[in-house]
Amino acid sequence: MAYECLAITDEGPVRIITLNRPDRLNAFTVQMNDELLDVLDDADRDDTVRALVFTGAGRAFCAGMDLGTGGNVFGLDESVDVASADMVRNRDLGGILTLRMFRMKKPLIAAVNGASVGVGTTMQLPMDIRIASRHAKFGFVFAERGITLESNASWFLPRLVGMAQALEWALSGRVFGAEEALAGGLVSEIVDADILMERALARAHRFIDRTSAMSVAVNRQLLWRMMGAAHPMEAHRLESRTMYHASMYDGREGVAAFMEKRDAVFSDPVSGGLPAGFDWDREPPFE
Amino acid sequence: MAYECLAITDEGPVRIITLNRPDRLNAFTVQMNDELLDVLDDADRDDTVRALVFTGAGRAFCAGMDLGTGGNVFGLDESVDVASADMVRNRDLGGILTLRMFRMKKPLIAAVNGASVGVGTTMQLPMDIRIASRHAKFGFVFAERGITLESNASWFLPRLVGMAQALEWALSGRVFGAEEALAGGLVSEIVDADILMERALARAHRFIDRTSAMSVAVNRQLLWRMMGAAHPMEAHRLESRTMYHASMYDGREGVAAFMEKRDAVFSDPVSGGLPAGFDWDREPPFE
Amino acid sequence: MAYECLAITDEGPVRIITLNRPDRLNAFTVQMNDELLDVLDDADRDDTVRALVFTGAGRAFCAGMDLGTGGNVFGLDESVDVASADMVRNRDLGGILTLRMFRMKKPLIAAVNGASVGVGTTMQLPMDIRIASRHAKFGFVFAERGITLESNASWFLPRLVGMAQALEWALSGRVFGAEEALAGGLVSEIVDADILMERALARAHRFIDRTSAMSVAVNRQLLWRMMGAAHPMEAHRLESRTMYHASMYDGREGVAAFMEKRDAVFSDPVSGGLPAGFDWDREPPFE
Repeated sequence: MAYECLAITDEGPVRIITLNRPDRLNAFTVQMNDELLDVLDDADRDDTVRALVFTGAGRAFCAGMDLGTGGNVFGLDESVDVASADMVRNRDLGGILTLRMFRMKKPLIAAVNGASVGVGTTMQLPMDIRIASRHAKFGFVFAERGITLESNASWFLPRLVGMAQALEWALSGRVFGAEEALAGGLVSEIVDADILMERALARAHRFIDRTSAMSVAVNRQLLWRMMGAAHPMEAHRLESRTMYHASMYDGREGVAAFMEKRDAVFSDPVSGGLPAGFDWDREPPFE
Repeated sequence: MAYECLAITDEGPVRIITLNRPDRLNAFTVQMNDELLDVLDDADRDDTVRALVFTGAGRAFCAGMDLGTGGNVFGLDESVDVASADMVRNRDLGGILTLRMFRMKKPLIAAVNGASVGVGTTMQLPMDIRIASRHAKFGFVFAERGITLESNASWFLPRLVGMAQALEWALSGRVFGAEEALAGGLVSEIVDADILMERALARAHRFIDRTSAMSVAVNRQLLWRMMGAAHPMEAHRLESRTMYHASMYDGREGVAAFMEKRDAVFSDPVSGGLPAGFDWDREPPFE
Repeated sequence: MAYECLAITDEGPVRIITLNRPDRLNAFTVQMNDELLDVLDDADRDDTVRALVFTGAGRAFCAGMDLGTGGNVFGLDESVDVASADMVRNRDLGGILTLRMFRMKKPLIAAVNGASVGVGTTMQLPMDIRIASRHAKFGFVFAERGITLESNASWFLPRLVGMAQALEWALSGRVFGAEEALAGGLVSEIVDADILMERALARAHRFIDRTSAMSVAVNRQLLWRMMGAAHPMEAHRLESRTMYHASMYDGREGVAAFMEKRDAVFSDPVSGGLPAGFDWDREPPFE
């Protein structure tokens, strides 16, 4: 697939995805969403890709939904009955994207180089790390536009930053800077713009060097899935199965290497799927 | 309804509810609970009310359940079989109140002017902001009285302050001051007593000025409901429907105003109900 | 039961459990797990025990699973079909332990005297307080060994420290010190090694002195159970029943003592079970 809204470069095992509509402040479109979904599918199939970093071209990260295309900016079919299953035609676009991110097998890192608002901010929530340049801005601006939380921010945001902070940002719709994002737990660090990508790559390598790709994929899935689990027994069922799988593959090598005081050589590919016993790609029906 | 335990004043779109039994340190009673439920119902029906601020008359916020009325202080019917459906007659009073707050369409703000303990503290948890005067005190004192968490604090408290802090406060029953409440994430700021109400009103206006009342109501509900959701798909279903509704009402105006660089004039009333596709007033049966 | 891997001492109402294989850095074994389960069962039956403190003999807390026993270090039966109910034979060992801790009636405190990694760290998560000596270390090292999160860390960890921190530690597998554990919310304080036990006992006494054992047991259970509850109505059902029980036992005494300005004498034993209306010992099937 040739991308018009994105630029893709690989830095060793890290794939860098640059939102690339700088003349529109990288505003989000249906096409950008389609291209992002393709990037995610492709990365999950490719064992040479171990982590993904997202950033923006030019001075913004992503100015939210592109409202400059005129007419029906949300692209919604207004003949649909909101209570019906037909709503599948009017699914929130960003929500489809973040559900796909939710079941990724690779760590996702946001290198927020400049302003992000709306879906530009909410698309970062299911990522595993958010690093901000000093110029970064954030905004859950929906209440100021007469619209509502999207991209499953209502689920992700309170789990990331706690309920009190989530309410403050979502009910006010305020735009805020990197310092407030750091204090509120939305980003984990602020760095100078000229070392933002360097730092994002360093953080990615913490998840790559010396680790099993299968272990990272499984741990990422276990944590995100268990954020909604009613009882630790759900964790016990999954963990017992993933540990059993590991004991026959990368875990056997990892323990042998540890005992022999040598570096482990992990080889269990995630492209073939995660351990049996759970349908990791399962998504509940929309309806 | 004429109130004996409360004083009500409006400051523009903000309704101020003062717990008003200063000679009893605003201790909680069955009647106070009834009056609070009435205030909440009334505010949800009235589109001129955009936010609610709760405070206490005199030097306390609320000294907990009024234990000075003698006899059966909990008002429980001791002939009831605890395992039976009959327990509906012995429902925890504060729990009924916080379940009603949980499904409010308007932001709730606690301006904690002085001591609060027991239900005086736990009634604050489903509110959206807690601001403390320097004289404020807090206490989940149940373990010291031989009773147990109530007002659904067992659900709200760990979601607000994290599990480690929730356990420390709930298992010790200690009374603590504003500084510890701030450090632990229970309140978002401490201010001098003489500017407490001014500050609470300013915080309320962040949720009122420039925002759509419908957006605020929906975002508040989305966040609180999704705190218990098992999977982000639940958010996706709701968000898709609320965004679709918004696209035909306040969202249409909000986007037009944004494109035309003018202030938006939002008019979608929440008194008529929140967007179709979900029964926002639904409460699971007590059973 | 005579213990080979543990040393047990009582300091008044506090039972101190010392992981006691110092020549193996207190590494975890099947036998240590069996002995810990026995200790927990015994403490729950014994009303003279009001809290449990866990620490390690020698310079380590627990070096994780003992990998030095050779052969099949995980003790797993590799003939089992991972998707089948037979997996009950291959249940994660640490997960069985932390599920037992989850339903304890007494507060659990970790006094982390030195290095902990793997199950040595994850076994601390369902405890109610973690205090670190300056020499303490922690590590969710699974990804570096080719294995995956266990002991239900995927459920407990994000609930304790938030999702962003949980992901960073679990995907990197890094070992980190007490300062990072404190900053990340994993431990609540750092103290000098020579006062670690003194401080752990002081923290335990906050949950013992002046409190009802029944209130503490119920509050502990309410908080841990409600961390996974979908709706505050689940809290309301349980809290109404526990408050009703309390109103007839320790709550009656507690309120009387409060009104009479005297110390309460609580006597409701937890060894007889927690309040009716909920099966507190219920565990969902492993299946």
